[in-house]
Amino acid sequence: MNVAMVSKNLGTLLICEIVAMIPAVVVSFIYKETELWAFIYTISILLAVGLGLSLIKPQNKNIYAKEGFAIVAIGWLLISFFGALPFYFSGAIPSLVDSFFESSSGFTTTGASILTEVESVAKGILFWRSFTHWVGGMGVLVLAMAILPSAGAGSMQIMKAESPGPSTEKLVPKVKETAKILYGIYILITLVQIILLKLSGLPFYDALIHSFGTVGTGGFSSKNISVGAYNNIAAEIIITVFMLMCGTNFALYYQFLKGNIKGIFKNEEFRLYVAIVTGAIVLITFNLYGNIYGSVKESIRYAAFQVASIITTTGYATTDFNTWPSFSKLILLLLMFVGGCAGSTGGGIKSIRILLLFKTAKMNLMKMIHPKAVYSVRIGGRTVDERTIADVLGFFFIYIIILCAAVLIVALEGKDLVTTVTSVITTISNIGPGLEIVGPMGNFSSFTDLSKMVLSFCMIIGRLEIYPILLLLMPKFWVK
Amino acid sequence: MNVAMVSKNLGTLLICEIVAMIPAVVVSFIYKETELWAFIYTISILLAVGLGLSLIKPQNKNIYAKEGFAIVAIGWLLISFFGALPFYFSGAIPSLVDSFFESSSGFTTTGASILTEVESVAKGILFWRSFTHWVGGMGVLVLAMAILPSAGAGSMQIMKAESPGPSTEKLVPKVKETAKILYGIYILITLVQIILLKLSGLPFYDALIHSFGTVGTGGFSSKNISVGAYNNIAAEIIITVFMLMCGTNFALYYQFLKGNIKGIFKNEEFRLYVAIVTGAIVLITFNLYGNIYGSVKESIRYAAFQVASIITTTGYATTDFNTWPSFSKLILLLLMFVGGCAGSTGGGIKSIRILLLFKTAKMNLMKMIHPKAVYSVRIGGRTVDERTIADVLGFFFIYIIILCAAVLIVALEGKDLVTTVTSVITTISNIGPGLEIVGPMGNFSSFTDLSKMVLSFCMIIGRLEIYPILLLLMPKFWVK
Repeated sequence: MNVAMVSKNLGTLLICEIVAMIPAVVVSFIYKETELWAFIYTISILLAVGLGLSLIKPQNKNIYAKEGFAIVAIGWLLISFFGALPFYFSGAIPSLVDSFFESSSGFTTTGASILTEVESVAKGILFWRSFTHWVGGMGVLVLAMAILPSAGAGSMQIMKAESPGPSTEKLVPKVKETAKILYGIYILITLVQIILLKLSGLPFYDALIHSFGTVGTGGFSSKNISVGAYNNIAAEIIITVFMLMCGTNFALYYQFLKGNIKGIFKNEEFRLYVAIVTGAIVLITFNLYGNIYGSVKESIRYAAFQVASIITTTGYATTDFNTWPSFSKLILLLLMFVGGCAGSTGGGIKSIRILLLFKTAKMNLMKMIHPKAVYSVRIGGRTVDERTIADVLGFFFIYIIILCAAVLIVALEGKDLVTTVTSVITTISNIGPGLEIVGPMGNFSSFTDLSKMVLSFCMIIGRLEIYPILLLLMPKFWVK
Repeated sequence: MNVAMVSKNLGTLLICEIVAMIPAVVVSFIYKETELWAFIYTISILLAVGLGLSLIKPQNKNIYAKEGFAIVAIGWLLISFFGALPFYFSGAIPSLVDSFFESSSGFTTTGASILTEVESVAKGILFWRSFTHWVGGMGVLVLAMAILPSAGAGSMQIMKAESPGPSTEKLVPKVKETAKILYGIYILITLVQIILLKLSGLPFYDALIHSFGTVGTGGFSSKNISVGAYNNIAAEIIITVFMLMCGTNFALYYQFLKGNIKGIFKNEEFRLYVAIVTGAIVLITFNLYGNIYGSVKESIRYAAFQVASIITTTGYATTDFNTWPSFSKLILLLLMFVGGCAGSTGGGIKSIRILLLFKTAKMNLMKMIHPKAVYSVRIGGRTVDERTIADVLGFFFIYIIILCAAVLIVALEGKDLVTTVTSVITTISNIGPGLEIVGPMGNFSSFTDLSKMVLSFCMIIGRLEIYPILLLLMPKFWVK
């Protein structure tokens, strides 16, 4: 392990976090809030630690897969920790564990909260809370690569370890350029949504908060009862559409900008994603109509928003789906596992993996019928090699194992089974709300510190797709 | 598809079912019950259909993998259907769907019941209900092979499709001999348990019923509140030990009889199984002591019985674990997935697969640390080939998918989430009790006919380890 090089990169990352904090400082300044000091304290600490680390001069500048994993895993733990300090210093969240939970939830775009009363929190602090979604959505380290001049050696390793999905494609040959293009698209989508939400009638501040929450597929709101508080159909439609857009692979927008529109609809993952979303909305609408809502229109309205919110792992809500029938709740629960597309800002297992798993299952069945025939799994016309299939199958198993392990620890709380299980599913898939106590109108404040720490780790493990954090825990990872 | 050969084999199977019914007829005769007629009607029908089919003279006597799957899948559906007729004709279960549920539950050694009042049912009928466990435990077709002179061509294909676990080893070169040895061991264990239970103070009839339920890892009892009704510690210990014994690979007993005792403890699956059982008992004991029971002894007593019952997928209970804390319930829930060892009478995913999945996950992590090193998964000193690993990973995924699909259909009932989800887990893993409404003191009587049919299919799908039934549903399976 090249400790010097890892440390230096972590230093740079902390400096970037200062940059990310500036907009919140400006908001705090504009509203003349005393919480401004909390940011100044935090920035001072970040500056000291960050500069200290980044001044290290490594003799060996090589970064391999191992170092990439270490930078990403430790980096995310550090930015979550330092990102928690404004909450803690300002007194908005008096406990450090709670602050870490809220900050991890922000950066990982989970959106699970321990706050019971959001609306009384200072504007600057709430802005920071939501802005972490925006920063974490596309990837903190991808951002660092896009803006820093030094990105070069090993940057592909870092991007691989941070980006969601089984394969990371470079849009253009240079990693730095790819990162810039992705952030360009990201900023464009954000700006369009802010304008549209403002036009729909939301106050400018609320439009900002909810755009960060949507585009990063995070889910933090400035209202206690989330987007439902506005009862504004236009805003709901805008957020539904933008959630679904941000659950899509951003590489498709690059294709779109280059004029390759056919290619988008040929993309098998995108087609599966559209099919799942449509299917889920139809099934839930049928289940809700007559049972919960009197009109089909109303049923579609609530079904569409909740489905989009859950599958993209955003976590906004316009109603308390705790009160829905079991069938609808179970569909949402299944969507929690699916998640968005690879290369999107969404969490979960990712549609491409689900597609691959289904195709592999079908191939296995065909092999049983004709044991001597040769079959292969093809996606987008190309054969997927055995190694990738094994990796994805392995990922699925390890996802379930981490889930079970976390559930057992959280179960020590003694909370009911549904709360216990869904609190872990929703954090590991970076969604936000679960069911019962942690439902869309509930929060995580009643958990013990142990559970909060476990759930915070689940969020980071889920965001980084398990391996980087898991490797950190293996003694062999540190040897040589 | 060689339809003639498949039909002929099914005919033979139905004749065997008549043989299996004889002990119940004797019991009915001894107790002078009018239900004797229900058996005579059923046997007449079986004789007509069975003889008709077995008189077919196929021109082509070849049986390949495909035919093996078809015989096993259709065979299990048929024996469950005909096995249900005594319940239906006798009026013990007035609905045909309910009778089919009870019969599937018996043969698949699930032990889930729709009966709300067991103790008033006629002795002959209850005997048949429990005897189906004993017949289904080791495999109906394995039995046919052991006793019929014609078993030869294709019998390995049938045994492969019916036997639990990823690989079927022949103990001796001939399939027929292997089947005989397995049944010999099976009969021996059953006899020993009957004698011990009688000595512990149970009435002879109850000793028979509970031995069939234990050795087949089934779980049907002649008491409404299961084994708890006796409050007999000796009987509980005997049943605990025999449940655990029958969750073990029967090939190990053959090793034992041949004097290879070292080999048993070197068996990695057996060691994992022992470790899981011990770990679960310890954790649950800690969780129960002080919370539910006042003494450690009592906590161990109930923890051990319930753990043994669930991991071996038997399903007997000495207490209502619905009232246990979430942590203990979740451990039991996880054990439901694990199940017994391959080559045992237990259901679930099987310890050997869990072992393989964990070893593969570890190998994947090692590969991430050292991408260029070569790793392999080894069990019992031998390298497991990539194909087997992919199959097991695929099996795990398809298990979860079938589970999810069944859960969604059962969810249409509108029952609570925990009941809905655990009713499917417990049937697909052939256990019996789940949680809430389907808990150890509950039953499946309140489900709709649709759900009962789905759950019956889950039991058969689970018993045959998914593929045979799934293949039946694929149009391509039937083409040439």
